[in-house]
Amino acid sequence: MKKIGKRTFKIENYVGVSGYSSIVGDKEKKGPLGHCFENYSEDEYFGQETFEKAEAFMQREVIRDVIEKAKTKPEDIDFIYAGDLLNQCTGSNYGVGGFDISYFGVYGACSTMAETLILASISIDGGFAEKTLCVTSSHFCAAERQFRFPLEYGAQRSSTAQWTVTGAGGVLLSKNEGFPRITEISPGVICDKKITDINNMGTAMAPAAIQTLISFFEDTGTTPENYDLILTGDLGHVGHEIVSDFLKRENYDAKNKYHDCGMLIYDHSQDAHSGGSGCGCSASVLCGFVLPEMRKRTYKNVLFVATGALMSPTMVLQGESIPGIAHLVRFEV
Amino acid sequence: MKKIGKRTFKIENYVGVSGYSSIVGDKEKKGPLGHCFENYSEDEYFGQETFEKAEAFMQREVIRDVIEKAKTKPEDIDFIYAGDLLNQCTGSNYGVGGFDISYFGVYGACSTMAETLILASISIDGGFAEKTLCVTSSHFCAAERQFRFPLEYGAQRSSTAQWTVTGAGGVLLSKNEGFPRITEISPGVICDKKITDINNMGTAMAPAAIQTLISFFEDTGTTPENYDLILTGDLGHVGHEIVSDFLKRENYDAKNKYHDCGMLIYDHSQDAHSGGSGCGCSASVLCGFVLPEMRKRTYKNVLFVATGALMSPTMVLQGESIPGIAHLVRFEV
Repeated sequence: MKKIGKRTFKIENYVGVSGYSSIVGDKEKKGPLGHCFENYSEDEYFGQETFEKAEAFMQREVIRDVIEKAKTKPEDIDFIYAGDLLNQCTGSNYGVGGFDISYFGVYGACSTMAETLILASISIDGGFAEKTLCVTSSHFCAAERQFRFPLEYGAQRSSTAQWTVTGAGGVLLSKNEGFPRITEISPGVICDKKITDINNMGTAMAPAAIQTLISFFEDTGTTPENYDLILTGDLGHVGHEIVSDFLKRENYDAKNKYHDCGMLIYDHSQDAHSGGSGCGCSASVLCGFVLPEMRKRTYKNVLFVATGALMSPTMVLQGESIPGIAHLVRFEV
Repeated sequence: MKKIGKRTFKIENYVGVSGYSSIVGDKEKKGPLGHCFENYSEDEYFGQETFEKAEAFMQREVIRDVIEKAKTKPEDIDFIYAGDLLNQCTGSNYGVGGFDISYFGVYGACSTMAETLILASISIDGGFAEKTLCVTSSHFCAAERQFRFPLEYGAQRSSTAQWTVTGAGGVLLSKNEGFPRITEISPGVICDKKITDINNMGTAMAPAAIQTLISFFEDTGTTPENYDLILTGDLGHVGHEIVSDFLKRENYDAKNKYHDCGMLIYDHSQDAHSGGSGCGCSASVLCGFVLPEMRKRTYKNVLFVATGALMSPTMVLQGESIPGIAHLVRFEV
């Protein structure tokens, strides 16, 4: 039986990371993790005509780069799982088209990177695939005009607001090959604590992260002490504090082990307020920082918990709250 | 090895349909398949405040009904796979929330029903799940105002335009239980033949359906004669004719076996032009008509090929064409 406890699953076959790539924009390159990102563009259009096309370009670039680095070919990749924040997931639809790989579009808002890794692990472990690609992206300018206001309006940002990361990340998972490997997965459940402030995604997502983390600890009988690093996707400073406080209250001592991708990618001088967000936040930090550090064995045992605010401007205008979700993936060297 | 040929996979364990449910609006209830739909609403709001909330309501209703009919409980369902056409997949996010089931959001436009069935089959066959729910929906009024014009504008519809089905469908798949069963799957690849007319989705999707069908026939060494029914999702009259012509040209004689859900759900008197479309089209026809008829053994061997136009109004305004995708699921009694 693969199921452990209520929501966690063991990946019984060896599912390894045989390649990864990230790409970011100028602000991310100038941030504290800038040295981790080889591929970047100073031009926010990435040489394309529009922000949306720039986002699709980032996905294409990441796919091309992963395939090249892993010395494989598109025809050897069984499935590609991709998604993004844009309406109709256009970053992915226009990004993965042209590679001639069977494609599953997913939508998990900023939790997409972990969602794709979970679905891909299931397909490899179940014997359906030898190699799968997991890709996601976000673009600050495209996201702002879609979810809030076009940048030209010069709208003031609230202190709890986050800055959507311009970036993409792609991971190639392979059967019996590569490292680190994925050993456990814990798909998330929607968690809606009735937050309605579209400028406070950290608070909307934090309860989902807490729910997934605590159910994972209960399922596996482990505590934060069993891991080197516990990394949420993009809760930012506001959401990170909520999760830290709550874990402490529940007697889970995460000490210095618990970090958040949205806090790592920008520093306080960069005017990102509560920190980074967007599918590209956890994707670029995973592919630019976490996986390379795991290959150097800085971290050997990591919980990657990408968090998504399933926020729809239409539904918020109609008085609905913002549901959150958090998917967990455990990487081990 | 489960893979057959280039893109097709055999489901080796028994993955059966242990429950299904559909719900539709007034126009669908008055159509040729009206007698198939038990659950319907004459009110296009389904008693809710907005069209978007009506769509979420349909998903909730279908989930509740499937669970009730199958005499199971939410806690016995391992995963729910759901998606829809609305931005940020709100029909699903607000529809599945509250059921406390691990949730994978997917986006495959109108191909979503088949995409969820494929992902769910993989998870059951691979030993990750005993029971999974697959749900999708669309709503005419919500889709029109999002993708084209608000209905209040009274915009004229072109002859190739389709009518988005107001409806939802849900399938409960179980290990070693229920019938028909899913025996083969063939996930689609993006196919972009540079169609840019947002009022001609049938032509945008038809090439993807042809691609998936022909690669499936080649992979399995079968022809249309091996099946009782070949059903595309929502190509409508325009797309159906393209696929029929092309199959004939490639010497695949589909004769009277090839039908399209978009042609079955409305008749010519209903002013639906080329026919029905939307995620809810193939979902409601599958759950209201195909699966019940398979249980009566009218059909024993069906290819269900849900087709998606990955159309983004933003990208079309930016001069991009409309990519299509088609996912195939084989049901057998």
